[in-house]
Amino acid sequence: MTHGPIRLTPGAHARLRPATEARITGGFWAARRHTNATVSIPQGPRKLESAGNLGNLRAAAGLADTDFTGDFPFQDSDVHKWLEAASWQLADTPDAELAGAVDRLIGLLAAAQEPDGYLQTHYQVKHPGRRWQDLRSGHELYCAGHLIQAAIAHHRATGRTALLEVALRFAAHIGETFGPGRAVDAVCGHPEIETALVELYRETGERRWLDLAAYFVDLRGHGSLEPGFERDGEPVTGGAYWQDEVPVRAARTVTGHAVRQLYLLAGAADLATETGEAELREALERLWSAMVSGKTYLTGGVGARYEGEAFGDAYELPPDRAYAETCAAIASVQFGWRMALLTGESRYSDLIERTLYNGFLSGVGLDGEHWLYVNPLQVREEYEFRAGDQSARRTPWFRCACCPPNVMRLLASLPHYMASGDDTGLQLHQYAAGRYAAGGGAVTVAGDYPWDGRIVITVDEAPAGPWTLALRVPPWAAAVGLDEGTVERPADGWLRLRRTWAPGERVELRLPLEVRVTGADPRVDAVRGTVALERGPLVYCLEQTDLPPGVRLDALALDPEWVPLAEHRPGLLGGVTVLTARGRVREAAGGEAGWPYGVVDGAAGDPVGDPVELTAVPYHAWANRADGAMRVWLPRARGGTG
Amino acid sequence: MTHGPIRLTPGAHARLRPATEARITGGFWAARRHTNATVSIPQGPRKLESAGNLGNLRAAAGLADTDFTGDFPFQDSDVHKWLEAASWQLADTPDAELAGAVDRLIGLLAAAQEPDGYLQTHYQVKHPGRRWQDLRSGHELYCAGHLIQAAIAHHRATGRTALLEVALRFAAHIGETFGPGRAVDAVCGHPEIETALVELYRETGERRWLDLAAYFVDLRGHGSLEPGFERDGEPVTGGAYWQDEVPVRAARTVTGHAVRQLYLLAGAADLATETGEAELREALERLWSAMVSGKTYLTGGVGARYEGEAFGDAYELPPDRAYAETCAAIASVQFGWRMALLTGESRYSDLIERTLYNGFLSGVGLDGEHWLYVNPLQVREEYEFRAGDQSARRTPWFRCACCPPNVMRLLASLPHYMASGDDTGLQLHQYAAGRYAAGGGAVTVAGDYPWDGRIVITVDEAPAGPWTLALRVPPWAAAVGLDEGTVERPADGWLRLRRTWAPGERVELRLPLEVRVTGADPRVDAVRGTVALERGPLVYCLEQTDLPPGVRLDALALDPEWVPLAEHRPGLLGGVTVLTARGRVREAAGGEAGWPYGVVDGAAGDPVGDPVELTAVPYHAWANRADGAMRVWLPRARGGTG
Repeated sequence: MTHGPIRLTPGAHARLRPATEARITGGFWAARRHTNATVSIPQGPRKLESAGNLGNLRAAAGLADTDFTGDFPFQDSDVHKWLEAASWQLADTPDAELAGAVDRLIGLLAAAQEPDGYLQTHYQVKHPGRRWQDLRSGHELYCAGHLIQAAIAHHRATGRTALLEVALRFAAHIGETFGPGRAVDAVCGHPEIETALVELYRETGERRWLDLAAYFVDLRGHGSLEPGFERDGEPVTGGAYWQDEVPVRAARTVTGHAVRQLYLLAGAADLATETGEAELREALERLWSAMVSGKTYLTGGVGARYEGEAFGDAYELPPDRAYAETCAAIASVQFGWRMALLTGESRYSDLIERTLYNGFLSGVGLDGEHWLYVNPLQVREEYEFRAGDQSARRTPWFRCACCPPNVMRLLASLPHYMASGDDTGLQLHQYAAGRYAAGGGAVTVAGDYPWDGRIVITVDEAPAGPWTLALRVPPWAAAVGLDEGTVERPADGWLRLRRTWAPGERVELRLPLEVRVTGADPRVDAVRGTVALERGPLVYCLEQTDLPPGVRLDALALDPEWVPLAEHRPGLLGGVTVLTARGRVREAAGGEAGWPYGVVDGAAGDPVGDPVELTAVPYHAWANRADGAMRVWLPRARGGTG
Repeated sequence: MTHGPIRLTPGAHARLRPATEARITGGFWAARRHTNATVSIPQGPRKLESAGNLGNLRAAAGLADTDFTGDFPFQDSDVHKWLEAASWQLADTPDAELAGAVDRLIGLLAAAQEPDGYLQTHYQVKHPGRRWQDLRSGHELYCAGHLIQAAIAHHRATGRTALLEVALRFAAHIGETFGPGRAVDAVCGHPEIETALVELYRETGERRWLDLAAYFVDLRGHGSLEPGFERDGEPVTGGAYWQDEVPVRAARTVTGHAVRQLYLLAGAADLATETGEAELREALERLWSAMVSGKTYLTGGVGARYEGEAFGDAYELPPDRAYAETCAAIASVQFGWRMALLTGESRYSDLIERTLYNGFLSGVGLDGEHWLYVNPLQVREEYEFRAGDQSARRTPWFRCACCPPNVMRLLASLPHYMASGDDTGLQLHQYAAGRYAAGGGAVTVAGDYPWDGRIVITVDEAPAGPWTLALRVPPWAAAVGLDEGTVERPADGWLRLRRTWAPGERVELRLPLEVRVTGADPRVDAVRGTVALERGPLVYCLEQTDLPPGVRLDALALDPEWVPLAEHRPGLLGGVTVLTARGRVREAAGGEAGWPYGVVDGAAGDPVGDPVELTAVPYHAWANRADGAMRVWLPRARGGTG
C-alpha cells in the first residue's frame, strides 16, 4: 500500500512519518494476511447478509420492507469496518470480485443515506424520529466514524470517491448538528468519530474537520453525558464507561470501557500530532505509561473487567477473567502507532509487537473464520462451557460482531505499521518480511521471524550521502547480533546505522530468541507464584489437549530445575515453534470435606509427583483444536516469585 | 422469640427442629443486635420514605398523585423486608413505637393492594396493565415472596393477622394466575416465592401453598424464561441468571446469580423437608458441597463475579473483585440452616458460623447505618474510589437497597439459628450467650465467644432420664476442652453429652483460639503464595490505616518466621481482639519502563526490608475508619503455598 490509515499533513508535528510504500511479501504475517484475504474478507458480505446488516441497509433504502435486525444500534459499523478492510486489501492486491462486492455495498450505503446526510439504520428503520437522542448508547457518531474511516481507506486504495462522498455528506450533517449553540452540544458515548475526523481533515485538507474533532475531544469529561449508568444496582463506571468522567488532559490513568478509552486516545493523539499541543501530548504519554505499567496483560491485551468491558485498577489483571477484548488490542495498536509517530520513541512499537503477536492475533482462528471476542490467559478444567459462550471457545460470528471486521481491517492494513521515515532515514519498527519505502530510501526485509531471530535487511534505495537505517531492538534483547559482530541494545531501543549506503547493501540482524521464564511484579497478585514462558515476541501457553492422558493441567507445576527448549513443528498449528518443559503433578489438595482452605502446609500441595513432559504452544494459536483448559501463567514447584 | 422464620409441620422429614424458644442475651451478637434494634431498624421508615418506597405505596393506594420513584421494579421488597425485620424485633422485645410504625406500613400496604389481591407498585403506578408480562426482570413473585415472609413474621411475632391477610390475598391471586393451563405457566426471574410459599403452608396448614411452591421449583430449568440475556454482546449467564438453565434436581453445581440461586435452593430445601423427597435432598447436598468446595470465599462470602452478580467457575475466587454480595451471604445462611435441620449434619452450621462472623457481618457498619453491598477480600492502594462507589466504601443506603433490610431481618431473627432439638435432646449450633429451649429441655449459654473460647452451658431444664446435649465442634478445633478434660473433635462434629441432667448442671466447653495461618488449595489461583490469618471463627485483614506512616500495604509480605499473637483491644472498633504480626517491606519491583513483567528473579521482589509490626483486625470490622487499602490474603516472604 502507498498510503495507509494515517497520512500526516505536511505541517504535522510528528517525529516520524508513515512509510510511503509498504508491502508484506512473506513469512509469518504474509501467511496470516493470506488467510485474511482469501477466507475472512471474502466471507464478509455473506456474514453481514445473514446477520441482517445488509437487510437493515436495504430497509433504510426503501428496497425492502423488513424490520431492523440485530441486538445493537451499531450494526452498520460492521459493514463500515468490513469496507475498510476490503479497501486496504484492494490497496494491497487488485481483486475484481472483491472490488465488485465493495461497490455493491457502497451503493447500498448511498441508497440508505437520508437526503440530509444522516445514515444509521437503527434510527432510520427501528426508531425513526429518535436520532441524536440517546448519545450514551446510540453509537451514531461511532458508526459515522467507522464510515469515514472506510471512505478514506477506499479513496486511498482506489482513488475513487463514491464512498467518500457518502461520508462527507454525513460529516457535513454532523458538523451542522453538533457544537456550542447547535442542536446538540455533547459527545458520543462511544468515541471513534474523533480519530476519523482528524483523518478526514488530512484527506480533504478541510480545517473544519480538525476543529470538529477538537471540539469532541475537548468536550469529554465535562458531563455532556451525565453519569449514573447502573447494572444490578451497581454503578458500572458512571461517566468512565462513556469516557465522560474526566477531561483527557486531566486524566491520570486509563479507565472505563477499554475500547472507548483507546479509540478516544487515538483520536486525541491524532489531534496533538496535527496541532502540536504539548499539554495534550503529555497527557497521552502519561496515560499510555499508566496503561503499560499496571493495566496491560503479558499478551498486550487490555481491559481486565467483564463488568463494563473496562480497565481494572492498576495491577488488577486476573488471567482467568481477563476480558482483553480483541477490539481493545486493536485499539491499543492504533493508539500506540500514533504515539510512535508523534514521539519517535521505540517503546510504543515494543508494545505493538507484543500485542500483534499475542493478544491481537489470538482473536482470529488459524482458519480465518472462527473468532474470540475475549482473550483470557487461563481457562480452568472447571470452566463451565455454555451455549453462546464467547469467552473460551472460538465462534463463527458474534451478535455483537465488532471484533471480526476489526481484525480484518488491521490485518489488511498491517504493512502500514511496520516502518516509518524521517529526515535522517528509515525506521524499521517490525520485522515482517517485505519491502518498505520511507525517509527517502527503501529496504527489503527477509527472514523467518519470529520463529528465527535472523533478519536480513537489504537497502534497495538510499539517497547519496549519509542515511540512517534505524532498527528497533526489543527490550527483551539485551544484545543483538549485527553482521559479524554483537552490539548492546541502545538505551532508546533504536539501533541506528548511519552511513552512505550502496544500493543492494545488506545488514544482518540477529535477535536473541532464548526462551525466557518471566515473572510478574508482585503487585499483580493474580499471578503470584507463577511464571510464563516467552520466546522473542511470543507468549506461550499450555493447553489440556497437549497433555498426556490423565494428567490435569490444573494439577501441574513447572519444574524450576529444568530449562525449556524450543523446537519447530512444521505440522502443528500451521507450523509453530513449541517450547518443551518439564512439570510435576501436585498431590491432591484441599481441606476437610472439600473446604479449600486449611493450615498452610496442609494446603500447600507442593508438586511431588513424577515428571511430565510439557509442550507449550504460542498463545495466539490457542483454542484452535479442542475446548479445554489453558494457562499462560504456570505455578512453579517450591513456591514462586513473590 | 418462640417461633422464627422456620416452623416445621409435625410431619416434616427433618432430622432436627428449630428451638421453641431462643433469646440472645449478651456478648458479641447481643451488641450487634442492640445496634440493629436501636439504630438500623428505627431508621427504616425514614430511609424508605426518602428513597420513595412509601411514596410508591401511597401512589398505588391513591393517597398521592406521584410518579413511581426508584430505579428498580422491586422497590416494594425493601418495605417487606423491613417489616419482617421489625416483626422479628418485636418478637424479641416489645416496642410500642416500632409496633406503631409497623402498623402504619401494614395499613399502607393494605390500602395499596388491588381488589384482586395484586400488589406491586412498579406495575400499579408506573406500568399499569403490564403485570406478569416481564417475568425475567419484573420481580413480581419475588416481591410477593418477601411480602409473605413479612406477613408470617408479623403473625408469629404478634399473633395478629392484618399483614397475613394482605399476603394471603396476593397469594390467592398468584395461585389463580400461575400454573399449567392458567394465564401464566412460568417462573419468576428472581426466586424467593418458593421458600415463602412453603412457609405459608406451614403457617396456614393449607396444602395448596406447598403444591404451588413445588410447581415453581419443578418448573425451573425448563425454559419457561428462555435465555439470551445479553450485555455488551456477551451472554451473561443465559438462563442461569434467572435460575432457569437446568432443573434443580439435575444441577451439578451452583451457578448464575448467587442470591437467586441460593434463595431457590432454600425454597427447594423447604420443599424436600416437607415432602421427604430423596432425589431433591441429594441434589441439594450435592449443590451445597459444590458451593463449599470451590465457590466460597474464606469469609463465607459467595458470588465471585460482578458480571451477573454470579457464582464463578469452581476455584475462580478473586479477592479483589470478589462480589460476595451481602444478600448472598444471607441467602447462604438461609439455605444452610434448612439443610442443617433437614440432615442434622454439623457442616452446615460450620459454614453458617463462618459466614455470620465474616462475609455477612461485614455488610453492616459498626454504627448500624453504613452498609456494604459487595464484600471484597482485597482493596488495592490503586483502587479508584469513585462517587457512587459501593465496592470498597460504606454507604448510607443504596439505590438497589436489597441488602440493608436483609441484614436487619437476619440480625433480628438470629436467635432462631443458634440451636435445635430432636427426640434425643438439644443441639447447640452456635455459641451466642443466651437461652435456648428445644428437644424437651432448655439451656443457658454464657461466655465471651468469639473473643474468648471458654463457653459455659447451664442445663436449666431437662426431662427425667437420659437426655443429650449436643455441642457443635468447629472443624478448626482438633480437640476441645471439656470441664476438667480434653476431648478430640468427633468425626461428625457433634460432641454429644448424653446423661441424666440435674437442672442447673453446668458444662464448660473450651474452644481452642490459637491463631491459624491459613493457605488455600492451589487451584484457587488468585491467592497462590499468600496466607490468611484466622482465630476461631474470625477471618482477619490488614487495613492501610493501621500501618506506620509511609508503609504501603501492597509492598508488605508476612514474615513466616514470626508467629502472630492475639491481643484484645477494648477501645478499638467497639472492642476487638487484634492479631499482631510481623511484615517485611518488599523492594521496589517492576521491569524496565514500568513494564510489570520481567525475568523471574528480577521481578521476584522478595521482601528484604526492615521488619514492620502489623495489626490485623477482624474482617467484619473493615472499612469502618477510613477509605484505603485492605487485604485478607497476605504474601509471605520467600514464596508461598504453591
